[in-house]
Amino acid sequence: MTNTTGKIFRVTSFGTSHGKALGAVIDGCPANLELSEEDIQIELNKRRPGTSAITTSRQEADKVEILSGIFEGKTDGTPIAGLVYNTNQKSKDYSPLKDTPRPGHGDYCWIEKYGNYNYNGGGRGSGRVTIGHVIGGAIAKKLLSQFNIKVISHVVQIGDIMAHSTDINILEENISKNPVRCGDLEAAKAMEDLILEKKSEGDSIGGIVETIAVGVPAGLGEPVFGKLDGDLAKILMEIGAVKGVEIGLGFDVATASASEINDEFYYDEFGEVETKTNSSGGILGGMSNSMPIVSRIAVKPTPSISKVQQTINLKEHENASMEIKGRHDPCICPRVTAVAESATAIVLADHMIRSGFIHPSNIEKSLYKP
Amino acid sequence: MTNTTGKIFRVTSFGTSHGKALGAVIDGCPANLELSEEDIQIELNKRRPGTSAITTSRQEADKVEILSGIFEGKTDGTPIAGLVYNTNQKSKDYSPLKDTPRPGHGDYCWIEKYGNYNYNGGGRGSGRVTIGHVIGGAIAKKLLSQFNIKVISHVVQIGDIMAHSTDINILEENISKNPVRCGDLEAAKAMEDLILEKKSEGDSIGGIVETIAVGVPAGLGEPVFGKLDGDLAKILMEIGAVKGVEIGLGFDVATASASEINDEFYYDEFGEVETKTNSSGGILGGMSNSMPIVSRIAVKPTPSISKVQQTINLKEHENASMEIKGRHDPCICPRVTAVAESATAIVLADHMIRSGFIHPSNIEKSLYKP
Amino acid sequence: MTNTTGKIFRVTSFGTSHGKALGAVIDGCPANLELSEEDIQIELNKRRPGTSAITTSRQEADKVEILSGIFEGKTDGTPIAGLVYNTNQKSKDYSPLKDTPRPGHGDYCWIEKYGNYNYNGGGRGSGRVTIGHVIGGAIAKKLLSQFNIKVISHVVQIGDIMAHSTDINILEENISKNPVRCGDLEAAKAMEDLILEKKSEGDSIGGIVETIAVGVPAGLGEPVFGKLDGDLAKILMEIGAVKGVEIGLGFDVATASASEINDEFYYDEFGEVETKTNSSGGILGGMSNSMPIVSRIAVKPTPSISKVQQTINLKEHENASMEIKGRHDPCICPRVTAVAESATAIVLADHMIRSGFIHPSNIEKSLYKP
Amino acid sequence: MTNTTGKIFRVTSFGTSHGKALGAVIDGCPANLELSEEDIQIELNKRRPGTSAITTSRQEADKVEILSGIFEGKTDGTPIAGLVYNTNQKSKDYSPLKDTPRPGHGDYCWIEKYGNYNYNGGGRGSGRVTIGHVIGGAIAKKLLSQFNIKVISHVVQIGDIMAHSTDINILEENISKNPVRCGDLEAAKAMEDLILEKKSEGDSIGGIVETIAVGVPAGLGEPVFGKLDGDLAKILMEIGAVKGVEIGLGFDVATASASEINDEFYYDEFGEVETKTNSSGGILGGMSNSMPIVSRIAVKPTPSISKVQQTINLKEHENASMEIKGRHDPCICPRVTAVAESATAIVLADHMIRSGFIHPSNIEKSLYKP
Repeated sequence: MTNTTGKIFRVTSFGTSHGKALGAVIDGCPANLELSEEDIQIELNKRRPGTSAITTSRQEADKVEILSGIFEGKTDGTPIAGLVYNTNQKSKDYSPLKDTPRPGHGDYCWIEKYGNYNYNGGGRGSGRVTIGHVIGGAIAKKLLSQFNIKVISHVVQIGDIMAHSTDINILEENISKNPVRCGDLEAAKAMEDLILEKKSEGDSIGGIVETIAVGVPAGLGEPVFGKLDGDLAKILMEIGAVKGVEIGLGFDVATASASEINDEFYYDEFGEVETKTNSSGGILGGMSNSMPIVSRIAVKPTPSISKVQQTINLKEHENASMEIKGRHDPCICPRVTAVAESATAIVLADHMIRSGFIHPSNIEKSLYKP
Repeated sequence: MTNTTGKIFRVTSFGTSHGKALGAVIDGCPANLELSEEDIQIELNKRRPGTSAITTSRQEADKVEILSGIFEGKTDGTPIAGLVYNTNQKSKDYSPLKDTPRPGHGDYCWIEKYGNYNYNGGGRGSGRVTIGHVIGGAIAKKLLSQFNIKVISHVVQIGDIMAHSTDINILEENISKNPVRCGDLEAAKAMEDLILEKKSEGDSIGGIVETIAVGVPAGLGEPVFGKLDGDLAKILMEIGAVKGVEIGLGFDVATASASEINDEFYYDEFGEVETKTNSSGGILGGMSNSMPIVSRIAVKPTPSISKVQQTINLKEHENASMEIKGRHDPCICPRVTAVAESATAIVLADHMIRSGFIHPSNIEKSLYKP
Repeated sequence: MTNTTGKIFRVTSFGTSHGKALGAVIDGCPANLELSEEDIQIELNKRRPGTSAITTSRQEADKVEILSGIFEGKTDGTPIAGLVYNTNQKSKDYSPLKDTPRPGHGDYCWIEKYGNYNYNGGGRGSGRVTIGHVIGGAIAKKLLSQFNIKVISHVVQIGDIMAHSTDINILEENISKNPVRCGDLEAAKAMEDLILEKKSEGDSIGGIVETIAVGVPAGLGEPVFGKLDGDLAKILMEIGAVKGVEIGLGFDVATASASEINDEFYYDEFGEVETKTNSSGGILGGMSNSMPIVSRIAVKPTPSISKVQQTINLKEHENASMEIKGRHDPCICPRVTAVAESATAIVLADHMIRSGFIHPSNIEKSLYKP
Repeated sequence: MTNTTGKIFRVTSFGTSHGKALGAVIDGCPANLELSEEDIQIELNKRRPGTSAITTSRQEADKVEILSGIFEGKTDGTPIAGLVYNTNQKSKDYSPLKDTPRPGHGDYCWIEKYGNYNYNGGGRGSGRVTIGHVIGGAIAKKLLSQFNIKVISHVVQIGDIMAHSTDINILEENISKNPVRCGDLEAAKAMEDLILEKKSEGDSIGGIVETIAVGVPAGLGEPVFGKLDGDLAKILMEIGAVKGVEIGLGFDVATASASEINDEFYYDEFGEVETKTNSSGGILGGMSNSMPIVSRIAVKPTPSISKVQQTINLKEHENASMEIKGRHDPCICPRVTAVAESATAIVLADHMIRSGFIHPSNIEKSLYKP
């Protein structure tokens, strides 16, 4: 089991869907960062269920409690433990799932690997484990904000509906205006309708979430096996339901010629190095080049659907069929935005320290002042 | 700098394009695996340049030498150091590149990050560093073969030309029959023509490489931050020129409903667990489910092209233009197949040990006998 | 900050002396180990303060709560979070310590390194952080007990008073009979008197704690930089107040000839490999050899004493003097035994998994049955 | 197998006594450090065999070759591979050792753990593997020297003969004047005599090596599981033949009272923080406090002796006796000084980067200027 991510800024996650609590221990956050429970709560609220008709109706306050690592309102360089108690573990009987693994879920793999599988609500395979990501991500975002780095995730596609690209200045504003967390308000409405249609069918739908990080200086990332895009790809692919990761043009490079997509350098009016285009998504040779870092993830439709599905009964060793009851998200993309933002921020915070931009023990000693 | 990949089966890579030598130290390979230089040479030959009209004309023998870790023809549990001396570093003058970073390359990032950039042939940003991957991958493949696991990479798309999917039994045979390393011989011919066309234009073209691993038992991968797909995404994205990674359906999940793509379980005629489809690409909840593991990577067109490009002169602090001379690959995909195969094998070997299928110190003690 | 120890069986510790809570997240414990809060509580009680006249009078229940990782009474392979709330943080004013670092304590180093130092009760420099060690150690001990491995720590010296060595069968019994946790009951009485004498003088006294692990199979430890003695030395030296670590004969080897101390091998009556002596303390070439693993640590006298001491005032930048009030241990050795036991167990559990004796995901699949 | 040490400045070691070559790959050394083969050769010469009557008569040039990581005379931030070919592997027959493990050596453990044991000259259990330590250490020392940090190891005891403590300014000079590498020339002579006496008896003798590091700033080391003394204890204990490690007063703390050994702080005439004594050996709370860092290691007598010893024959499964022929060191302490120096330097270089004193990618960007 490896429930820790990061090399210096490290997040260790724990807890299950229907256990006592979920949380994370953040180690390696430098001292002297102002941090409150409110900073984390704001981010947790973005992934909280039950906030609209297009998410699960499970109601959870997801109230965070910081147990350690803060002294006089600031981080003190010791591990920050953040905790969220589960309050609404519906006492329904999950035992039918015990021996009949759900298609599209990890149940079968958990049983094979660990033997003793906590099937209640998917146990640690549940999307609720991303609470740990968001606790870590909220702290990472706060840290990055001190260095003028901002990370924003938004939904760019649901099913066949694609959002038009939006100016980054109004993107954040628009995202907060619709439950889909899409920057194109017109597309957002169509996406919402599609999701509700799938919900009414007892089905679910996939989509694409894009993340943009601005303000990242050139030089983050360590070739050959510590590349920035490698670490981003890993943490993004590890988000449940993600089946693909792109940086910059992504799969569109397959049909391109170099003469079309090589990003040419120039000095801008302030004498800063820029590229005319950003095909590379801000990463060249595995290192940031100071342009916005752009990633996209393919999010599969939530596999828990109420339609009848074929599966097996492991105890009886025979084929079986099942219907999954419960309060499921007909599209997980809107809530995934909070997780993608957090995951990206964790990687960037880690690399900002690893690359010497943020001082590892005390942010006030940081050499880098953007 | 992080030039080591893996947790137990670990590959530490070193060397540059025009330095004395390149190589890798493989640590954590269990004892009692029969291993010879020939085992590694076969794999290195697949990525060796100068073997056809569609690769660079640089001639390199890429002859491997094993310095340690083998006793009486078998691994002895100590680190295996593999070395390839550079023999054909064309003594051309790379100094024009010193201050003018090539578009689409990492030059600018290397200079910003490290200050002292070895610009000769791209230094450690060169594709030649994948010699280290292949040395490690060859050992991983040999290890996996003892447990009936096979890893095959092939080109499935170049530009707009896509290969038809091929039965796995003839895939390997067909790959070896054409320089593109494509399993669809008809498509391979069209791809070759397209690559030669781009070459003649002084341009280059991108593509997609697919990797299939068969024979992997269920239960590899460690949720939440050690998922098998996360580790695959990382190592594949870290291959130079890769801008996207997909597992299973990949980005096609964005437009799908769960009822269409959930892989339903059943018992096959031998009582083995199978899924009717393999949308998930063999990985559910971050763990292998015993179905073939399928990944695809988007490979950008080699950025080194002979067309005039705009860039900057860092010394003069002014805009500039450049033409890149040299012997470049008009399409790197065919040679990337060897690297993708190696990278995938390294991750699988590591996880086979981490998950208890292969004994960490002595393969003869392995519990798992497929 | 690195608050995680171990490679596969990993303990991440958090919390401070006077914060809300202390605890640990244990990751990598295989599934199917029976585990209850009681298993941990028994070990925590051994290091709990306020249990005799020779420990600090601070009263703490140190009641542990498990938040995750257990399903139906057994570990399920997911991280185990254990928590102890602080209940008796005496609300005395620690602010005099803010700018005057205590001699023999880490205060000055904390201030220099992190800037924002939580000086209350020593913050994370307090001995209370070993609660995390003991939570991890209790789980490690339970795991090891399934494979017939036992770890016992005891006091062998306080000041000039040395314990006679005791048969291991009565050692554990004797330890529990005296507050010094010494296996020689006569020496224990003298040690207790010495400690009380130092207490009455407002001073403190050092000592030596020995740890014995029996039942460890041959082959744990990984040369060259993952040696078993190396990992033991590290975790033991990291216990606060420890200034020396010995394995086997320890510093006595300096005056010995090889002919005197080489442990000669022989087959015992059951055909098992034994050594006639155990100078090496069960470790040769960095690997266990199946003999008892014996370590000793030098524990310095608790630096918090009520005598007047010279120090500096960092704010005024001038020399100063101080008297430390409070409830301190006149000798920390008795309580360190619980920590040394835990630390040793954590290393052995980690290496038992790393060396393939315990299956990494499910103990029921373990090949090794002692 | 774990043949890598360090977190950022990392040394991966490979090779065996009688294989083709030994070496190390140093990853994470920042760019712009002037470095030549000569820098490494000087250090290797200190541990080279055959240089006096008190070391083994095996003659090895131990000539180092750098394969990568240097550009225009300076490190370029990429991995530095250093190689030493074995030239004098005496072709004697080691096969008698195949089934009869030598007392005091790791042979038995290697056989049990890995099955395929390279018994020639002890394989990777040989002292020759410390060539990798010294290659890494030489680079670490060069890096530290840029920041005015110096590391010196010397012999302080052989058998019962102890050296008088020497002023650090003449210590280094004296060390180079005698083959024992002892700073007290009178004691050195007596030690040499004792070693020769043991040699003539076909026996060997142990001793103690002390290492002093001066110029280390306050704040290196990361509580709770990344303490500076923990990392030093680990790497020192991992040197073959070491059975004990002390920091500062070491085991003498056992008999001390706090009032005797607490190091009191004061401001010196330059306004710098000092302690009146250095009982703590420069480390408090696991962090450096700017005083000299002092460690001592107990080195056992070389177990290879020509006297008859009892052992077992694993093939015949019966008790046996053996005499070990060969060219052995009657006392390994003099040569261990080079290794202890290297090991200490590696840990300090790693922590100087980890603690933000040395910039991780480019030393010219380092904030810290002593």
